[in-house]
Amino acid sequence: MGKEDMQLFWGSGSGPCWRAMIALEEKGFGDIEKTHINFSEKGHKGPDVMALNPRGQIPTFKDGDIVVNESMAICLYLEQAYPNNGNKLLPTETKDYAKVLQMAIEAEMNLHMKIIVNCVNYHRITPVDRRDEKTVKSNIKAAKEELAIWEQRVSKSNSDYVCGISFTLVDVVLFTYMAGLVRMGSTLSDFPALKAYYEKLCKRNSIAKSWPPHWKDGEMELDKKCLTDI
Amino acid sequence: MGKEDMQLFWGSGSGPCWRAMIALEEKGFGDIEKTHINFSEKGHKGPDVMALNPRGQIPTFKDGDIVVNESMAICLYLEQAYPNNGNKLLPTETKDYAKVLQMAIEAEMNLHMKIIVNCVNYHRITPVDRRDEKTVKSNIKAAKEELAIWEQRVSKSNSDYVCGISFTLVDVVLFTYMAGLVRMGSTLSDFPALKAYYEKLCKRNSIAKSWPPHWKDGEMELDKKCLTDI
Repeated sequence: MGKEDMQLFWGSGSGPCWRAMIALEEKGFGDIEKTHINFSEKGHKGPDVMALNPRGQIPTFKDGDIVVNESMAICLYLEQAYPNNGNKLLPTETKDYAKVLQMAIEAEMNLHMKIIVNCVNYHRITPVDRRDEKTVKSNIKAAKEELAIWEQRVSKSNSDYVCGISFTLVDVVLFTYMAGLVRMGSTLSDFPALKAYYEKLCKRNSIAKSWPPHWKDGEMELDKKCLTDI
Repeated sequence: MGKEDMQLFWGSGSGPCWRAMIALEEKGFGDIEKTHINFSEKGHKGPDVMALNPRGQIPTFKDGDIVVNESMAICLYLEQAYPNNGNKLLPTETKDYAKVLQMAIEAEMNLHMKIIVNCVNYHRITPVDRRDEKTVKSNIKAAKEELAIWEQRVSKSNSDYVCGISFTLVDVVLFTYMAGLVRMGSTLSDFPALKAYYEKLCKRNSIAKSWPPHWKDGEMELDKKCLTDI
């Protein structure tokens, strides 16, 4: 167990992988062994990942003989196992701990469902001629209502971070969804506080260092940009 | 903070509420103030819940001035704030902690998506004449593949509990999904180890005590039993 025994399998542009990578950077483990997995070559179904994670998904993370694969579990594990390394993603004081934990899980559950499952996956899975316009519209509406909740929280925060404390697990989650939105065509123009929050955090060291490499090569193809209405 | 300051708003038959209630029982907080919310009267959108949880969802839980609403966050919070009360839902030792945390989040994410979202919600939301037979079949298949993963884990466990340690957070999650499956018509006949696991845990004190009251009044109406093929 420890830095020398850690290994992360990750893919460029995956939100869950990025969350694990930001957490690792924040905890001072940015330079552990990292194995880049090529999604188009189905590397996540290859023997190295499958041996550790029979679901064939990434992130796949090991720390010696401990294997943790769910991104939220990786973040919580790092804080539990290495409370004194790097930055604290979960405060120690019970009230703040509760606030961060609640908001991080709330963000993960709601943003995943309302943005990724209902908007992005629907767009990717459903052929153009089978997309139901009514469903698309109501899903975009629900995603915007969700974002309005976070817009309000960020605008009320008395710091650059959503919880008003320090950079926490909530920011790891919220930021990566905001970055995904922008990548997929959202201008965040209805959400000025989230836009400013996103732009500030882009410059944070842990985030800039772990930025998805292929995003630097150019914009997403236009027909994949399914969040232009948000 | 403490037993006297706790309050839970809950609804009968809600998996997330039941998970919070089992965790409270296990931690020795079974007799805190509990407010039963009637879903059909939209009590979860009433002022008491909305004041604490603007999403208007239950469980809604408070401990003094600390509010935690996501069921997974409630369980993790109780363990963090009251490590020495009742039974430990998360082991202290790092390796076991990592195993339980990973499996609990893995269970929550996958069982929620594959059973509740793709099977139950699809059935509830989509009118009979608009249900796509191919989608229904492929969702049932995916749910069964997910259950096969847990069948194997339970059958390989060297205790009555899925992690092979003691009753943990993974059991809180897994058991409630199994109970939901049975309630909605599954016989679990393809999953003998899960069936035996379910039947044993039904008798556990924390579970029997928090059993959804209206489930005791009789079976679910036949047209709502959407999991008879599992």
